[in-house]
Amino acid sequence: MKVLLIGVGGVGEAIAKMSEKRDWLDQMVLADYTLNRAREVQKKLGDEKRFSIEQIDAKNKDGMIALVKKYDIDLIMNGCDPSLNHTIFDAAYGAGCNYMDMAMTLSEPHPEDPYNKTFVKLGDYQFERTKLWEKKGILAIVGSGVEPGMADVFARYASDYLFDEIEEIGIRDGNNMTVEGYSIPFGFSIWTTIEECLNPPVIWERGKGWFTTEPFSESEIFHLPEGIGPVEVVNVEHEEVLLIPRYIDKGLKRVTFKFGLGDDFITMLKNLKELGLHRTEKIKVGDTYISPRDVVATSAPNPAQLGPKMVGKTCAGTWVKGKKDGKARQVYLYQVADNQECMKNFGSQAIVAQTAFPPVIMMELIARGIWKGKGVYGPEAFDSVPFMDKMEDYKFPYGMIEMDSEYKEMLKEEELVKV
Amino acid sequence: MKVLLIGVGGVGEAIAKMSEKRDWLDQMVLADYTLNRAREVQKKLGDEKRFSIEQIDAKNKDGMIALVKKYDIDLIMNGCDPSLNHTIFDAAYGAGCNYMDMAMTLSEPHPEDPYNKTFVKLGDYQFERTKLWEKKGILAIVGSGVEPGMADVFARYASDYLFDEIEEIGIRDGNNMTVEGYSIPFGFSIWTTIEECLNPPVIWERGKGWFTTEPFSESEIFHLPEGIGPVEVVNVEHEEVLLIPRYIDKGLKRVTFKFGLGDDFITMLKNLKELGLHRTEKIKVGDTYISPRDVVATSAPNPAQLGPKMVGKTCAGTWVKGKKDGKARQVYLYQVADNQECMKNFGSQAIVAQTAFPPVIMMELIARGIWKGKGVYGPEAFDSVPFMDKMEDYKFPYGMIEMDSEYKEMLKEEELVKV
Repeated sequence: MKVLLIGVGGVGEAIAKMSEKRDWLDQMVLADYTLNRAREVQKKLGDEKRFSIEQIDAKNKDGMIALVKKYDIDLIMNGCDPSLNHTIFDAAYGAGCNYMDMAMTLSEPHPEDPYNKTFVKLGDYQFERTKLWEKKGILAIVGSGVEPGMADVFARYASDYLFDEIEEIGIRDGNNMTVEGYSIPFGFSIWTTIEECLNPPVIWERGKGWFTTEPFSESEIFHLPEGIGPVEVVNVEHEEVLLIPRYIDKGLKRVTFKFGLGDDFITMLKNLKELGLHRTEKIKVGDTYISPRDVVATSAPNPAQLGPKMVGKTCAGTWVKGKKDGKARQVYLYQVADNQECMKNFGSQAIVAQTAFPPVIMMELIARGIWKGKGVYGPEAFDSVPFMDKMEDYKFPYGMIEMDSEYKEMLKEEELVKV
Repeated sequence: MKVLLIGVGGVGEAIAKMSEKRDWLDQMVLADYTLNRAREVQKKLGDEKRFSIEQIDAKNKDGMIALVKKYDIDLIMNGCDPSLNHTIFDAAYGAGCNYMDMAMTLSEPHPEDPYNKTFVKLGDYQFERTKLWEKKGILAIVGSGVEPGMADVFARYASDYLFDEIEEIGIRDGNNMTVEGYSIPFGFSIWTTIEECLNPPVIWERGKGWFTTEPFSESEIFHLPEGIGPVEVVNVEHEEVLLIPRYIDKGLKRVTFKFGLGDDFITMLKNLKELGLHRTEKIKVGDTYISPRDVVATSAPNPAQLGPKMVGKTCAGTWVKGKKDGKARQVYLYQVADNQECMKNFGSQAIVAQTAFPPVIMMELIARGIWKGKGVYGPEAFDSVPFMDKMEDYKFPYGMIEMDSEYKEMLKEEELVKV
């Protein structure tokens, strides 16, 4: 398979690195706004023929279409901030090639009632075009990272193999990572973190559909496995809530996404908002016009480069509540990544590496013809087993906890550690 | 007297407003980088002849000298951020006219030991030039606002009339102001607040001279009068510490400046620093180069415009500890400004209005020949009584508390209110 990777940031670099030795990959074109950045990654990889570089503006649709033609590309892998999704998605359509991204097109809050009603939802732009993609015979997998991505595959697996009835699915994410010298480090794309945390979080309920709440709502304590322990998680706007109800049923009544941000980080985000620094629209500063969020994203310590200073583990996963064989059941399917291991294996910090491996597995499944289709889909539209079977090989094995037995054991052990 | 006001921001507007009906003022030229801003203030004042407007870049020394000549100016009043002090101060010298500012030229931290040693101190640039100013027969009063400014006048008054021996002088400042809908409002110039709060605070001690500490050091509870109550104050870099030891002796052993910032505000400032947003040097964002602090200062809610939403009082003052007639004595000389009164009287919020009235009184004293001299001085170099006598007339009366009697009474009353 020939891949055009648009955007060679932290996650882009990890995607290239994880694909490097795989036989399903014929070529990956590393295309970035800054050619030097693409060159830097190319040098780390070594194989200049398989990993060629190109300068590209992700707002330039025709430029991307030309690159697809130049290299006879099979799939565009979008490694950019989601604000650029429209053009990259449309370029893939225009060029008639497959497409994957790790975050869907952005939402727009309801103009009158932003904390109750949805307006433009995450991915609306993309799902509205599914018929066009079908007609053209090409495939888009949207939300193909770890969350959304792996978490959606887990939801599908639970639905297919673990439950007869599903009441609720909640993505739960947190970490115990610390960065020496930093009290409020961004662990992932600064631009995207501000976007998803300050937007009204979205929830899905049967009968009610999608609706929104105040940011940071419905705080709860969730205990994460492998020694991470209890984390306070809050509602955050995330793609899984938009994807899961499209493909999973079994009586499903509620879907949420909650993330363990921590009080200090929430305070920092609220302060950014109060200072107007979260804004994406340009403001006039002296004689220049500039987007305050772009300034924050450029000025703050780059999360992709904090890796060597980070210590700890991060956990992404899917909690499912329902019934099996007439009995109540709750499970948490998860993947825990240790930062130092990720640094050693991939030269990337844990959250970046964990985001990068699922699209690489998915590209392999597409290359081998195991995942296939026409149209625009979330990852839970495909068979979960081939994906989960490959996780260990890619050094990101999954785990599963039965909440009514193992989870209770875990809580007891946490108590013992405390004493 | 003919005044050239460079910079018609919040404080500049209040200076113009407070000078409007005064007979000592013949003309005030409102000069700003943005001519429309000067025009806006001119319209509020009504008298277009006495308050003419000019466009000026405060980095353009020759342009300012030309304005002094054009209008036959007696005094340049500097209403800009202190980063622009050098040029405006030099323009006054070049034009041979008097000069006043409300904050002194900036410090530079010690390159190796910033939290112990001073390097370039506040006002060094200006005081190094005092002989030149003397020779030319012109006067600069630096630090002429409320703090520095009024607080220094209070120190001089205490030294002349209240104490035989002085052990310590500490400027203490705080408020109980709240702004509806804001948890961390800047009460004063955003640029300057970041500068003074994140720079290493400076302390003066006899024998040791000036030295620095970690930001936010030596937290203490200080009780402020007129119902404001207890405030947690911390060391902040401020001009009074540089000025007072130059002019006041009586055995003085220590000078500090402590400001009641509040935990939430300190957290916000620390976060700005961690995100690199406090920086003044330009960084590359996309294709533009921009100073992150300029973006924060432009993006955050303008403190000069928050007035209508503010409720509460602000207190600026000078605490002096020493001996009188052989007995230990402590006093706090202060000025309390109520926001709603300031809004009613001057259309400016309390902190802005309180900063503006002292330079207006000082201009009157210079115009009437009561304060005079040649060279570069702080406000405590002049007789305190004529200044303090005018405070009531300008609607900012001072108060004084004897700490060993009235202060203790105040604490008892606070306790009663609590119960």
